[in-house]
Amino acid sequence: MTAQMPPAHPFDDDKLREECGVFGVVGVQDAANFVALGLHALQHRGQEAGGIVSHDPEQGFNSARRFGYVRDNFTKQSLMETLPGPLAIGHVRYSTAGSKGNTAIRDVQPFFGEFSMGGAAIAHNGNITNANALRRELIERGSIFQSSSDSECIIHLMARSLQQNVPERMKDALRRVEGAFSVVAMTRTKLIGVRDPLGVRPLVIGRIGDDGYALSSETCALDIIGAEFVREVEPGEMVVIEHGHLKSHRPFEAAKSRFCVFEQVYFSRPDSILGGRSVYETRRQIGVELAREAAVDADLVCPVPDSGTPAAIGFSHESGIPYGMGIIRNQYMGRTFIEPTEQIRNMGVRLKLNVNRALIKGKRVILVDDSVVRGTTSRKIKDMLLDAGAAEVHFRIASPPTAWPCFYGVDTPDREKLLAARMSEEEMCDYLGVDSLKFISLDGLYRAAGEAEGRNNSCPQFCDACFSGEYPVRPRDMIEKGFELKAAE
Amino acid sequence: MTAQMPPAHPFDDDKLREECGVFGVVGVQDAANFVALGLHALQHRGQEAGGIVSHDPEQGFNSARRFGYVRDNFTKQSLMETLPGPLAIGHVRYSTAGSKGNTAIRDVQPFFGEFSMGGAAIAHNGNITNANALRRELIERGSIFQSSSDSECIIHLMARSLQQNVPERMKDALRRVEGAFSVVAMTRTKLIGVRDPLGVRPLVIGRIGDDGYALSSETCALDIIGAEFVREVEPGEMVVIEHGHLKSHRPFEAAKSRFCVFEQVYFSRPDSILGGRSVYETRRQIGVELAREAAVDADLVCPVPDSGTPAAIGFSHESGIPYGMGIIRNQYMGRTFIEPTEQIRNMGVRLKLNVNRALIKGKRVILVDDSVVRGTTSRKIKDMLLDAGAAEVHFRIASPPTAWPCFYGVDTPDREKLLAARMSEEEMCDYLGVDSLKFISLDGLYRAAGEAEGRNNSCPQFCDACFSGEYPVRPRDMIEKGFELKAAE
Amino acid sequence: MTAQMPPAHPFDDDKLREECGVFGVVGVQDAANFVALGLHALQHRGQEAGGIVSHDPEQGFNSARRFGYVRDNFTKQSLMETLPGPLAIGHVRYSTAGSKGNTAIRDVQPFFGEFSMGGAAIAHNGNITNANALRRELIERGSIFQSSSDSECIIHLMARSLQQNVPERMKDALRRVEGAFSVVAMTRTKLIGVRDPLGVRPLVIGRIGDDGYALSSETCALDIIGAEFVREVEPGEMVVIEHGHLKSHRPFEAAKSRFCVFEQVYFSRPDSILGGRSVYETRRQIGVELAREAAVDADLVCPVPDSGTPAAIGFSHESGIPYGMGIIRNQYMGRTFIEPTEQIRNMGVRLKLNVNRALIKGKRVILVDDSVVRGTTSRKIKDMLLDAGAAEVHFRIASPPTAWPCFYGVDTPDREKLLAARMSEEEMCDYLGVDSLKFISLDGLYRAAGEAEGRNNSCPQFCDACFSGEYPVRPRDMIEKGFELKAAE
Amino acid sequence: MTAQMPPAHPFDDDKLREECGVFGVVGVQDAANFVALGLHALQHRGQEAGGIVSHDPEQGFNSARRFGYVRDNFTKQSLMETLPGPLAIGHVRYSTAGSKGNTAIRDVQPFFGEFSMGGAAIAHNGNITNANALRRELIERGSIFQSSSDSECIIHLMARSLQQNVPERMKDALRRVEGAFSVVAMTRTKLIGVRDPLGVRPLVIGRIGDDGYALSSETCALDIIGAEFVREVEPGEMVVIEHGHLKSHRPFEAAKSRFCVFEQVYFSRPDSILGGRSVYETRRQIGVELAREAAVDADLVCPVPDSGTPAAIGFSHESGIPYGMGIIRNQYMGRTFIEPTEQIRNMGVRLKLNVNRALIKGKRVILVDDSVVRGTTSRKIKDMLLDAGAAEVHFRIASPPTAWPCFYGVDTPDREKLLAARMSEEEMCDYLGVDSLKFISLDGLYRAAGEAEGRNNSCPQFCDACFSGEYPVRPRDMIEKGFELKAAE
Repeated sequence: MTAQMPPAHPFDDDKLREECGVFGVVGVQDAANFVALGLHALQHRGQEAGGIVSHDPEQGFNSARRFGYVRDNFTKQSLMETLPGPLAIGHVRYSTAGSKGNTAIRDVQPFFGEFSMGGAAIAHNGNITNANALRRELIERGSIFQSSSDSECIIHLMARSLQQNVPERMKDALRRVEGAFSVVAMTRTKLIGVRDPLGVRPLVIGRIGDDGYALSSETCALDIIGAEFVREVEPGEMVVIEHGHLKSHRPFEAAKSRFCVFEQVYFSRPDSILGGRSVYETRRQIGVELAREAAVDADLVCPVPDSGTPAAIGFSHESGIPYGMGIIRNQYMGRTFIEPTEQIRNMGVRLKLNVNRALIKGKRVILVDDSVVRGTTSRKIKDMLLDAGAAEVHFRIASPPTAWPCFYGVDTPDREKLLAARMSEEEMCDYLGVDSLKFISLDGLYRAAGEAEGRNNSCPQFCDACFSGEYPVRPRDMIEKGFELKAAE
Repeated sequence: MTAQMPPAHPFDDDKLREECGVFGVVGVQDAANFVALGLHALQHRGQEAGGIVSHDPEQGFNSARRFGYVRDNFTKQSLMETLPGPLAIGHVRYSTAGSKGNTAIRDVQPFFGEFSMGGAAIAHNGNITNANALRRELIERGSIFQSSSDSECIIHLMARSLQQNVPERMKDALRRVEGAFSVVAMTRTKLIGVRDPLGVRPLVIGRIGDDGYALSSETCALDIIGAEFVREVEPGEMVVIEHGHLKSHRPFEAAKSRFCVFEQVYFSRPDSILGGRSVYETRRQIGVELAREAAVDADLVCPVPDSGTPAAIGFSHESGIPYGMGIIRNQYMGRTFIEPTEQIRNMGVRLKLNVNRALIKGKRVILVDDSVVRGTTSRKIKDMLLDAGAAEVHFRIASPPTAWPCFYGVDTPDREKLLAARMSEEEMCDYLGVDSLKFISLDGLYRAAGEAEGRNNSCPQFCDACFSGEYPVRPRDMIEKGFELKAAE
Repeated sequence: MTAQMPPAHPFDDDKLREECGVFGVVGVQDAANFVALGLHALQHRGQEAGGIVSHDPEQGFNSARRFGYVRDNFTKQSLMETLPGPLAIGHVRYSTAGSKGNTAIRDVQPFFGEFSMGGAAIAHNGNITNANALRRELIERGSIFQSSSDSECIIHLMARSLQQNVPERMKDALRRVEGAFSVVAMTRTKLIGVRDPLGVRPLVIGRIGDDGYALSSETCALDIIGAEFVREVEPGEMVVIEHGHLKSHRPFEAAKSRFCVFEQVYFSRPDSILGGRSVYETRRQIGVELAREAAVDADLVCPVPDSGTPAAIGFSHESGIPYGMGIIRNQYMGRTFIEPTEQIRNMGVRLKLNVNRALIKGKRVILVDDSVVRGTTSRKIKDMLLDAGAAEVHFRIASPPTAWPCFYGVDTPDREKLLAARMSEEEMCDYLGVDSLKFISLDGLYRAAGEAEGRNNSCPQFCDACFSGEYPVRPRDMIEKGFELKAAE
Repeated sequence: MTAQMPPAHPFDDDKLREECGVFGVVGVQDAANFVALGLHALQHRGQEAGGIVSHDPEQGFNSARRFGYVRDNFTKQSLMETLPGPLAIGHVRYSTAGSKGNTAIRDVQPFFGEFSMGGAAIAHNGNITNANALRRELIERGSIFQSSSDSECIIHLMARSLQQNVPERMKDALRRVEGAFSVVAMTRTKLIGVRDPLGVRPLVIGRIGDDGYALSSETCALDIIGAEFVREVEPGEMVVIEHGHLKSHRPFEAAKSRFCVFEQVYFSRPDSILGGRSVYETRRQIGVELAREAAVDADLVCPVPDSGTPAAIGFSHESGIPYGMGIIRNQYMGRTFIEPTEQIRNMGVRLKLNVNRALIKGKRVILVDDSVVRGTTSRKIKDMLLDAGAAEVHFRIASPPTAWPCFYGVDTPDREKLLAARMSEEEMCDYLGVDSLKFISLDGLYRAAGEAEGRNNSCPQFCDACFSGEYPVRPRDMIEKGFELKAAE
């Protein structure tokens, strides 16, 4: 169906991209305002579009969905007045499934369904790995899909459940779903949160005042609304909050947690707490580990801003090499350009980053970045540094080589476009044209993330499929489309 | 759910309003362009919003839905390029069912459904009188409604049909539907048209070139694209056009036609042909009949522009009293104002009409209007004429008293707001404060519409429920909501 | 300088076009609201853009200028609240001078200037025939022009006047200006109106309540605000209204009035009063004269809607041939299309007009139109009639052949594009392909306009330069650009 | 006159704000594209609006002015195509003079004037301190101002000059102007740059390819277009670039440079070079000096992002106290909200900054910020830190107390709103509620900026009026309005 937005021209497309953030609030006045703030704090998890559904006892369900930043849409009084009531959920999105780069407004969540016992809305972070099969089956049975989103399966499965209330219908639906999901849902009176059995995507619980609760992808969004962080929704848990009380359900069979390690490396905000640990501290510690694993003699440790900053601080601290801002970021960059000129299209990273020439000139520079995906940006940055007179450029990467696509809610290029899928570390070093290139080891990463013994290879503590090729949930739809799993060793 | 448009402030709200026009084309290059032109010619049937779905063998189905006039949206190259292919259907709407005056874009047709054998889109003119019951049943069985439109039932019924092709699924669906419907539908290769068994709403067939066909609510829209008028889709007929061939089906039991007589009086454009007869000529003839039935001595016959014009011409011709433009219409009026000032809100009809004072002064004026609904506009016009110095004002109305609401696709006020439901002709004359007031008789109207013998009361040739209270299809949903049918006499 | 609007694609470009309407009000609460209504009633005089300046004792001068219809902009409360105060003037425009079809917002009037004794705003209807010379001189002396409008000269001349108050500065300025002008102006307390010595463009005075005054291009705009028509501003008169009192000044030397006869034929609204006479009646009378001058045997008199209607009524009445609506106008046409498809570009008049085929078929038709400019539309209409089966088509034109461009505020094509400048009546008849073609004579037109003796050739009562080539004010700028006056006979 | 933008609700209003950036290019294809990139790199100098004027030999001058970020407007092909030619200048603005927070589009530069020898456009960074007097005089003599900007005086003075070419007219004009100005101007063939005799605002020269030149407020904007930094335009110098050649003029009497020291502290981008020195290095050195002047025992040095970062790095390095990101900035904040909800209005700095709670908890924190203006933000940040469990909070400020308003092109609050104008350092410390508060000394700042001997009090090397109250140019307009200079000591 026709797109309603011109294609985006992302200039940071050499990153993996988190696809979604979810947020819900119950038990406060004008809950939608809280959701708007929460989504603003989760904007790094999806910049393409956002939506909010609220419920008011008198005015029923209301919803608004908009392209663009939360701050440009959901701060306006005229819009927020249309979203009254003490209960609301919201979603920010960058598409993974669904029509990429070309989203229609109908692909923007939350999704809403009117059931015989009343309406329900859901917002989903993650990716359903058997969505195609489910969709075929549902269409066969007479469901009409309105979006191209995998998440829509959930609401149709709920609509067809024979259970008499929404939480039970959600259980029915989610037991049929494979993959990674953190879902926030609402009925007229209930706020509901669920994580898949492996707990791949984050979801946390906060309290507001005496009676209020919030559910959020990350703790940083609790801070902005002044909510107190209570705990994480546990892998495989469903929480149902109604009239100020939270009940915990366990709809799925017990499984061992496999939280996404890339949330630690890049996706989550540094001021969030994941698994009881500060993301900032984990990233700083990655820098420390990296300095131990891959020391090099140099004059300056520079982050590639902003995601490389905590690791660079840690690297500098551990190595004793001074930390400096060798690359300056333009604060006025957004993600997309509408109908850009040829020149803008070709500018790439120079629109966003500039070298601090006076600082770099003649120096041996250690550049700390969070990851290497296609390698295109890394090459340009290296060129900019050399052009500015750097004597040596050493790349240190705060994650292992990204050699496999993610099928659990992260936007990754096809495998053949991943530099690490095609090249060894030495080949990548040559390709990038740098004096040295080192990635942190998987064990180093696990240690930095709090696993003192490193990775338990027989039963890894995280999902690290993008590095290891070991997929904790079979990517059924992708295999159907021809994706080949890593050969058993 | 939240409206995406501020409420309209219509200033011609003292009219009944046709709710929809439909148009479809197959077998031409860039069919959507033809549909846009057709919808422009049908704009009088719905000004709130419009939509087009097209299909192209390579690019599949595409759709666009927009608020506002066809000419402001569907003339733009950038939009029309997104609607390629040789097959397209479209819809213009003013809501009857659905959220009145407050339509969300998701209420705008055509509706689209992806079935297991491929997609289909439908556009509906009319109203389903058992939509509430159908909706309840469908929700119970797990369908998720996306709009508040009665027409959405049809596509869900189709989605659940066990038939193996779209036309058969449409038959299944429409056999469950009660009320008035002229539907235009499309699959990847077929253009389909259906009228309900009574043929309440119009639908005509046209040919374009050698291989092309068009379906349209009215013939005037065939003219604009240079299509040749072939014939009407008959009441109870389904036509399926594919690869340049038209096949006729008869899915419903035979019934006697009850075409809407108000299409003759007001809705259809004067340059359309209905039932083999020019609408303009019928209206002129109404004026002739009215002059015979309700002669009065006067100096001038004036239409209330523009809908009263043909009857005024006929009245003048028959009576010999000169015809003149005593009321001038501002050509730059649209239908709605966004966030209007108090003053604009109170201006009412004066924004649209002005008295030609020099012509009116001192004259005895016969004012010919198409109908009296609430009577509010009529009073204001009378005031304007007296204020301009008219010596006498005689209202002659080109339709019988409108005493009953329409449930077949026309936007009528609740019965208690219809002047003729509350007052006799004499009381109305007093209320309006005019020197005389006469409505054409039902028989006179039937004669003007070509029924030389007048109305066949045992089996009327038209649906005239708005005048007679005789509803040819039981208005089930409305009765459920408390509407009382006319007591049997 | 860069345009802010895409070029228009007018589909009635085969008409001469009035360029402007002006309106001002003083002595009422929220004067800008009255001005908005007045401009709405004058919208036929300019559809491209509009502007209002108001003054409030506390908030000073405020202004708003917008592209598009008055009704789409100046009805919104949020905008109108920014225009407070008891004094306001406004302007609607279709450009004559200035950047054609490509207006920048800075070309939209009123123009405002801050003088040492306070600010003043002016709105101008007409055209300055020595604007180029004035502009050159003013630039030489250090004035900076902000628009491409000829009218801006007036405000710069005022800025440089040594007089100590605004009315005297206006006199100074307008004495230097040649051409046609009806100007409405305002200071903090005064509403001012002026007409050029020949009174080419209209300007009338109205009263509102006890203390209020209005100035308007036409009387129809007094009606909409409930103002009482007092009299015309006389040719060469300046009226200054302050504190409820009107003073008349005579800044120019006496001259004989030469009011634009085309205002009678086409520009002004039929419900306006010009020179003490109803425009509608004058046009109806043109039809009467035309029937006398150019009778023909036929079955039907049809107007080309809407401008030909009054003359067609008169023609029918005088000839006894029945009047009918053989051509139906689409009410949903506006003037411009943004970025139209090829197909729309080629549709021309068919987007706006459709033949009432049933009425026309087999008939000998007299088609009454107001004027023939390029002849392109007339040809298309004739084609449409023949295509619908008309037996004969006779054109009767309610104005003499338009053979000369207007330089006094009307948008006319270059002389070589005027059909009547290139062809005799017979040649035009051949070119249009009609059975006969007749224009009203100049004398017939003058008689219809109330001059019982017809045109006084030694001293014509109207400006009829577009028909006669006799220009009452030397078109200095155009002669400088190479325009050749009619050779003396 | 009416604003065209709702008022902004800036949430970083506790900063001084640079008002403008200027950029010009000549001798390249599509110069406006280069200007757009340059302005994007200068966006930190003005976020409210931007404008570009270009000249093409065939298409003459074109211009476009837009509210909002450069990247949202001047990257679109459809707009940039309207700005052809090899010569262009541009401007980004945050208003100082002119209507604050409420700019009309006509206040957006460049300003354009058509002179008798052809057009010229100017873009001005700085502030004219005798603008009111000049404006009065120009109005008295008949100039009409179109904006409320002080900069418009320059173009009117140029229009009235009797000189025969634009550079000479600029000299005439600028010799009458007092205050601070860096001006970029253009004619059809020339690119011109001028700095006031004291060189208060920056302006640099770059080369592009063989024939191209650029003028820019800062060197960082040369980097983005790949231009080579040549040198600064010197205080009191005018450069005229034509046909690939640069000529230097000296229109003003010699004076000693007084470059704005706040450009070093805050305004300029850290990757720019000012006075031959890296801004980043100067700021880092300020941190070093501050650590020496105001040491304190603590666990962590945190910047207030992003402006405090370089000084915090320097402080950490000098003091040996670890550097950490205790405050995290939301990357998706812009400057303004349109019609915000009450809640958004009250959120203040929490929309932009969040505390990294895990890092801060229990720590003694040194917080390094660039300046304290009103103190409102500093208080909120302190509250956030204490709320997160900081044990101690020590503020270290990278500039001396800001006790005087700037009249040379920086947006400062009235003097009574400056915290340092009302309180001593101790009182401020109490007011902010921190454990200690120290500002760098003036001498320390001068040393960090490269003046090894510190400030030469008899003839300071910089303009530091905002700290010292010593105004190098008499602020004539402000004194007229009642501003009182510092009493002589």
